[in-house]
Amino acid sequence: MLQHQDPLDHAFQALSDSTRRRLVERLSAGPMSVSDLAGPLPMSLSAVMQHLKVLEAAGLVRSEKVGRVRTCRVEPGALTAAEHWLNARRRSVERGLDRLGVFLDATKPEGE
Amino acid sequence: MLQHQDPLDHAFQALSDSTRRRLVERLSAGPMSVSDLAGPLPMSLSAVMQHLKVLEAAGLVRSEKVGRVRTCRVEPGALTAAEHWLNARRRSVERGLDRLGVFLDATKPEGE
Repeated sequence: MLQHQDPLDHAFQALSDSTRRRLVERLSAGPMSVSDLAGPLPMSLSAVMQHLKVLEAAGLVRSEKVGRVRTCRVEPGALTAAEHWLNARRRSVERGLDRLGVFLDATKPEGE
Repeated sequence: MLQHQDPLDHAFQALSDSTRRRLVERLSAGPMSVSDLAGPLPMSLSAVMQHLKVLEAAGLVRSEKVGRVRTCRVEPGALTAAEHWLNARRRSVERGLDRLGVFLDATKPEGE
């Protein structure tokens, strides 16, 4: 089912949970082992691993295991794709508001 | 239940559906009546209205009815909040990669 959906569906879905955003925030500062990542969080290691699984499936995080330590890092590509989508929409809305401003200025009665 | 969640939860959740993103894309070009918005889309007016309800609840779109016409527009604030969150994370990841680059350069054996 997953492969028929737009990657942005998964990125936005994964980011719609504040715990997962917190994990991304912590990992944005630099790669971290799963146990360091989970350490200060008020939840079980297995809950953290479930959230990481969602973030990895969405392409926002990747992890690799060396020996007994699994290290996670943020994958900037998926963040950037989501950011670009939002940026393009916001700029389009702002251009529309600018055009409206020009129109309202042009139609203002003289002397105002 | 809704009021206990972070507004970003709702914004990202609403944007995790490609049809809703398409509605936001169309509305980003400028305000539009619900029937103009729904016109070219391969779905019923009532399906479009359901999606709009989700976008309005997430603060991404607002609509007002004048006479018999309901006009929708994008609310730039919610887009901007989501964009800022992503931008801050991406910049943080990039700063980390820059630091790693500096570290690797500094530890490079002489003559390389």
